[in-house]
Parts: sequence; C-alpha cells; structure tokens
Amino acid sequence: MSETNEIKVAVDAIVFGYQQNTLFVLLVKQKFGQMKGTWVLPGGFVLKHESLIEAVTRELQEEAGIQVNYLEQLYTFGDNIHRDPRFRVISVAYFALVNPNNFALVEQNDTDAEEAQWFAIDRIPRLGYDHNEIIKVAHQRIKNKLTYQPIGFDLLADEFPFSDLESLYTIILEQDIDRRNFRKKILSLGFIEETDTLVANTGSGRPARLFRFNKDTYNQLLSKGFHFEIKFA
Amino acid sequence: MSETNEIKVAVDAIVFGYQQNTLFVLLVKQKFGQMKGTWVLPGGFVLKHESLIEAVTRELQEEAGIQVNYLEQLYTFGDNIHRDPRFRVISVAYFALVNPNNFALVEQNDTDAEEAQWFAIDRIPRLGYDHNEIIKVAHQRIKNKLTYQPIGFDLLADEFPFSDLESLYTIILEQDIDRRNFRKKILSLGFIEETDTLVANTGSGRPARLFRFNKDTYNQLLSKGFHFEIKFA
Repeated sequence: MSETNEIKVAVDAIVFGYQQNTLFVLLVKQKFGQMKGTWVLPGGFVLKHESLIEAVTRELQEEAGIQVNYLEQLYTFGDNIHRDPRFRVISVAYFALVNPNNFALVEQNDTDAEEAQWFAIDRIPRLGYDHNEIIKVAHQRIKNKLTYQPIGFDLLADEFPFSDLESLYTIILEQDIDRRNFRKKILSLGFIEETDTLVANTGSGRPARLFRFNKDTYNQLLSKGFHFEIKFA
Repeated sequence: MSETNEIKVAVDAIVFGYQQNTLFVLLVKQKFGQMKGTWVLPGGFVLKHESLIEAVTRELQEEAGIQVNYLEQLYTFGDNIHRDPRFRVISVAYFALVNPNNFALVEQNDTDAEEAQWFAIDRIPRLGYDHNEIIKVAHQRIKNKLTYQPIGFDLLADEFPFSDLESLYTIILEQDIDRRNFRKKILSLGFIEETDTLVANTGSGRPARLFRFNKDTYNQLLSKGFHFEIKFA
C-alpha cells in the first residue's frame, strides 16, 4: 500500500483569452530542472493543506499574476503513467477564461516560471509533458460549451459591440454564421442588453452601440428551465 | 515539496444499472478499518504502475466482479481536504453503465469489501466519505447526458421492447414524455432498428416487437455531423 504514496498530484490551467479576433492560451517557460526553457501550462503540485481549486488559483497568481473570470475543472490526466519523465504525476486540469482588461496584466510573482506569454491557439509550440494534448481537450470543451452555455461573455469586455460577439463565435467555433439570424436569435434571448454607449466603428463610418450580458436575467431564465443554445446550420 | 507526497490518489466508481423501471447504484460494504460496515462506492487507491482507468477497472473487478458497458471520467473530488478522515485523498470518480445481463452478476473476488449490492437511486443509505455527494453529481451527469448522447442503450438489453426505452427516459429524467412523439422522433433518427423478434407483452395482450440500437449507423451519422438530442416540452 505504501506505493500509493508515490503518485504526485498536480493542477494545470488552460487559460483562454480573446484579443483581435484570435483565441489565445497562456503559457509559461520553465525556469528550473530538466524542462528548463520549455513552454508549459501554468500549474504545479497541490500542497497538502490546500484544495484543488486553491492550488490552481495560487499557481495562476504565482506564475502569471492573472485574475480569471471563469474557472472549471476540465479533466484529470493520469492514464499515461509516463506523462512526467521524472515521476508518476496525475494532473487535474482546469480551464479558465479571462476578459480583455485582465489579458494585458500578465506578470509574475514568486514563481518557477521564467516568463509568461500568450500564444495564439494555432501557434502553440511543442510543450513539455502532455500539455499539447491537454490544450486540445480544453479547446474542444470550450467549443462545445460555447453552444450551450453563455461563457463567451467572460472573454469579452463588460460592454462590447455586437460585432465582437459575432466574431468570437465565428472564430472559436471555426464556422461562419448567418449574422442576421445570429443577432436576432441572441437578442431575443432577453439577457443581452443594449447600453446607451456608442463607440466609433472601425468598419463602417457609423458609430456602434455597445451591449452588455445581464447575468441576473440569465440566471432568472435558467431557474425557469431555460436552456441557452446556439445552433449552426 | 516533500509534503506533496502526502496526497493519496483514489478512484471511485458510480455504477448505474436499470431494472424493473428503477435506476440502481452499486454499493459495497467496507470490511476493514474505521469505516467497517459502512456502505461506500466501489473504489480504492491507484497503484503506482497502473493508469487511472486500469485502477477503476481493477477495483470493479475485485470488489464486485462486474463488467461494465460504458465507463467515463466524471469529476475529481479534492476540494474538501477532509473528505477522508484518515489522510488527504483525492478521488477521481468514474461513472459506469451496466446492462441487464451483467446486472445480476455481482460477485466479489479478492476484495476489501464485505458485500456488494444494488440500491435504488432514491434509497441510497448514508454512505462513507463524500460518496452521497459524488452520487448526486453522477446522477445529474447521467440525466444531462441522456438528452444528448445515446447512452441509455447501455442500460438496456441488446434487444428491447420500445416501451422499455420510453420508460427508461421517463424514469431517469423524472419527466413524463409524449410517447407518440418520442417514438416517432427516435425511430426517425435511423439508428434504432426493428428486429424480427416478438415477445409477449405484459401490458396489453398483443406481442411486442423488439428493437436494437445500431452503433455503427449511429457512428456513421456522427461522422456526418449529426447531433443526437432528446427534448422535453
């Protein structure tokens, strides 16, 4: 039974950010050990007296100084017993979303990481351990989830032009959308509110109105059995 | 860093079976230690040289001698650091489905469990650790999953009267269904085949035809972008 002590428990975070029509993932460069200089997901070992969620929050704070809007357990990776060449480690992976205000604020505190940096999802380098595989699973999860839970708003500013929401769906789901139907559908749901704010529109000459996600209204609808759903033809 | 060695990794399985219009969960009674005589989920510590999935399969074999049709990682429980009163343990929970042929075949091999037994989902006793909580999460998962993935067939015999499928949905989802629409919808999907087999129908006098789930047809549809979905009004 003593050999059960020899499995270490880690947490890793797949942090998604969205900027300039691109989905990004936050990576850190390892500072020490065998993997020195290699890009990996932020994460590390769980300490004995902290919960899993505390561990992942602490690691994100230490390695990237980042505040996330949304954090959810993704999957526990432990079927490849050699996923860490040093010793047996299982990793409880979490995926997180940050909004544009926090996107810029990546900085490091007390950390095992040399550097923290955003990488476009289609330009992820070869990572340490099985982290490329973990990102694939997280990418699929965010794509699925976007169609049945309004998590896209956690990647946008509090107030956003409607075209940003459309682009976010198009880009993350890698599918074209019928913009007119999308707008009609989304606005009919009742929890996306038009604000009084107008901003200059870089596309056409006309200023664009900003919109806001009303979480209270959404939660009220949920409690009445409402199901959010975005479908593509 | 040495304290990271002190977290133990366990797997637990929530095995669902379906018999006589009732959803059941498989429990085992602990034979040794502080929890002797307490009902718990089948499970145990992961050994250093086995994958998580090997560990849960081994534990199911040892403690209940049971073959499952479907096995999927549910969630990793590790936020309550006192979930095991003896030491810090995180548990990677799996949910499993068994069909009626295997339902009866619960027997124990080399095991820490004194007894293995099915309990109706609404008659689960007070379990050891946080296992009542884990069952709640699994129950919610199976309810959700039933509406968007055809996992219900893993709880039925290979050939089944259509009324069994209807009852399974009604009972697990705890909702009445419009039987005529349900039948029409399900049969229109193309992967439920009528067989030539007729069985005596306990309800009416007329014999009932048996149906079969064709997994190959379903997988072909999936690869063409088909999405299974059962909606209730």
